[in-house]
Amino acid sequence: MAPVPSAERDVRQAMPSLDPLFQLLKGDLERVNALIVARMDSPISLIPQLAGHIVSAGGKRLRPMLTLASSRLCGYRGNRHLALAAAVEFIHTATLLHDDVVDASDLRRGRDTANAVWGNKPAVLVGDFLFARAFELMVEDGSLRVLGILSRTASVIAEGEVHQLMTANDTTTTEEAYLEVIEAKTAALFAAASRIGAVIAERPETEEQALESFGRNLGIAFQLVDDLLDFSARESELGKSVGDDFRDGKITLPILLAFARGDAEERAFWRRTLEDGEQGPGDLERAIGILERRGALAETLARARIYSKAAIDALDVFPDTKLRAALIETAIFSTERRF
Amino acid sequence: MAPVPSAERDVRQAMPSLDPLFQLLKGDLERVNALIVARMDSPISLIPQLAGHIVSAGGKRLRPMLTLASSRLCGYRGNRHLALAAAVEFIHTATLLHDDVVDASDLRRGRDTANAVWGNKPAVLVGDFLFARAFELMVEDGSLRVLGILSRTASVIAEGEVHQLMTANDTTTTEEAYLEVIEAKTAALFAAASRIGAVIAERPETEEQALESFGRNLGIAFQLVDDLLDFSARESELGKSVGDDFRDGKITLPILLAFARGDAEERAFWRRTLEDGEQGPGDLERAIGILERRGALAETLARARIYSKAAIDALDVFPDTKLRAALIETAIFSTERRF
Repeated sequence: MAPVPSAERDVRQAMPSLDPLFQLLKGDLERVNALIVARMDSPISLIPQLAGHIVSAGGKRLRPMLTLASSRLCGYRGNRHLALAAAVEFIHTATLLHDDVVDASDLRRGRDTANAVWGNKPAVLVGDFLFARAFELMVEDGSLRVLGILSRTASVIAEGEVHQLMTANDTTTTEEAYLEVIEAKTAALFAAASRIGAVIAERPETEEQALESFGRNLGIAFQLVDDLLDFSARESELGKSVGDDFRDGKITLPILLAFARGDAEERAFWRRTLEDGEQGPGDLERAIGILERRGALAETLARARIYSKAAIDALDVFPDTKLRAALIETAIFSTERRF
Repeated sequence: MAPVPSAERDVRQAMPSLDPLFQLLKGDLERVNALIVARMDSPISLIPQLAGHIVSAGGKRLRPMLTLASSRLCGYRGNRHLALAAAVEFIHTATLLHDDVVDASDLRRGRDTANAVWGNKPAVLVGDFLFARAFELMVEDGSLRVLGILSRTASVIAEGEVHQLMTANDTTTTEEAYLEVIEAKTAALFAAASRIGAVIAERPETEEQALESFGRNLGIAFQLVDDLLDFSARESELGKSVGDDFRDGKITLPILLAFARGDAEERAFWRRTLEDGEQGPGDLERAIGILERRGALAETLARARIYSKAAIDALDVFPDTKLRAALIETAIFSTERRF
C-alpha cells in the first residue's frame, strides 16, 4: 500500500474528527440506534413521533459512544453496554427536550426544536417518558451500581440546570460558579457514561476512576467550546443559532473573561445586554468584537485545551490500542471542532 | 365509656375521612416528611425553596400513605417503607410540577403554583431533580423489583399525560380512551404505591395483586371524583379553581356522558367551548347546568362508587384489622369527599 502523502497526513492531523471512534463502534452503534427506536415506542403515537424528531436529528451520539468505547476499552465482551448506551442517550435526550422548553429555543441541530413544532407541553412530557424509559432499561440490566451512578448523575444534571438559571443575567457570576454549572449540566453525564463501561467489565476502581476523569475533563472541554462556538461558529455548520446564549443572557466563560478585562463602557454594554436583556440590532456583532479584542475567545479555547489534555492523560492506564487512539482524537476534536 | 350517641355515629358514617388512616400512620408519616425535607435539599437554594413550596402545601399525602399502609397490612416491620414512601411522593410531586407547567395552572391546593411564582423553567427542572432523587432513594433501598415497578409506572404516567393532551379539545374521545388516560396518569401510581408494600414484606403474589387492585381501583375512583369536583366543588374547599378542566378543554367523563346524552344545541355548545376553546362569561355555569340536567355528575359518581367498591373488595384477602378498616374508609372517602 502506498504511503499516505504527507500533505494529506497533515490535513488529517490538523482536522481531528470523531470518525475513527465512529468507525470502530459502528456495529455497536447501529444496534444501539435500533434499541433506541424500539424502546421509545409507545401506543401513544405522539411519543415516538416527537422523540423520533429529536433522536433522528442525530447529533453526535457522543455520550452513548463513550459507554460503548469505555466498555470495549475495558475488554468487555457481552451485550449489556448496548442497553446502557441507549439509557445514557435517553437521559441526554430528555434533558435536551426540557432544555429547549426552558430556553424557549426554536432551533437544535439545524432543525426546529420539538417544542417549536408541537408546543411545550408534549416536549416536557415526552422528556419525562424518555427519562423513565432510561431507568427501565437500567433496571432490566440489573446493576444497582450503574443505577446508582446514573440516578445520581440525573439529579446532578438537574441541579446544574437550575444553577445555570440562577446565574443567568448575572454578570457578577464567578468563574467558579460557571465551572460548577458546566461540570454538573454537561460533564457529569460524560463522566458517568464513560465510567459505567468499567463497571460492567468489572474492572478495578483505578480504571473506573480513569474513565470517570476522562469523561469529566472531556465534558468540560466540550462545553467550554460549545460556549465559545455560540459566538464564533458558522450557523450553517453549528446547526443551531449563533448568539443563542447571548440572547438568553447566559453567562459563559467568554463573557466572564471579557467582563473582567473590560473597561467601564464595555461593562455597561454587558450589563445592558445581559442583565437588563436590552438587545438591539448590531449588539451580537459588538459582543463578538469585544470578545475577540479582549482575547476572551482565545483564552476560553486555551482553557478547554487544558481539560482536553487532562482527559487524554487519564487514558494512560489503558494499553495503546486503536480504540484508545480514537478516544484521544475525540478529546482533540472536542476543542478543535468548528461545529 | 359512654356509648357514642347515635346521631354522632350517623354523622361519622355519613362523613368518611382520611383521619383514621392518618392517625394509624402518624408516626411513620412524620418520619417520611422529615425524609422528604432532608432529601429535597441541595446546595442550589432554589431547589429546596421551590420543592418546599409544593411539598409543604401539603396535599393529602395519599400516595405515600398507601405505601406505608400496605407495608403494615402485610406485616412489614422494618424501615424500608419510609424511603420508598418518600420516593413515591417525589414522583408524584415531580408530575405535579410538570402538570402545572403543562396546564399553565396558577392555583394548586389553594396556593399559587410553583410555575406561577418562579416561572416555568425552574418548575420543569426541579421536577426533574425530584424525579431523579426518587430513583436515588430506590437505588439506596436496593430492590430491583421495586425499581422495576416504579420505573415502569413513571413511563406509564408520562404516556397517560401525553394521551390526555391528545384527547384534549376532542369531543369524539371515547370513554375507553378517557379510562386509559386516568388509569395511566393517576391509578398507576396508586397501584404501584400500594403494591410495593407487599414486595418489601416479601408476601405472596396474591397479596401483591390484591394491593395492586386496591390501589388501581382507588385511583380510578379518586380521579373520577376529581373530574366531577371540577364542576361541583366549592372553590374554598377544593383548593384549586373550579372549572379548570373546562377552561383547559379537558374531556372528562362528565363531559363525555353529557355530550352523548345531549341534543344538537348542547353538542354545539360543547364543541364551541371545548373544541374551539371559545368561552365567555356564563359558559361555565351553563356547562354545570347541562351536566346536572343530563345526570352526568350523578352518573360519574355512581361509576366512581363501583371502582371504590372494587378497591374495598380487593382487601378481602387481608385480616380484619383497624388498618384495613381505615383503608376501606379511605376508599369510601374517595367518592364521598367534597374536596
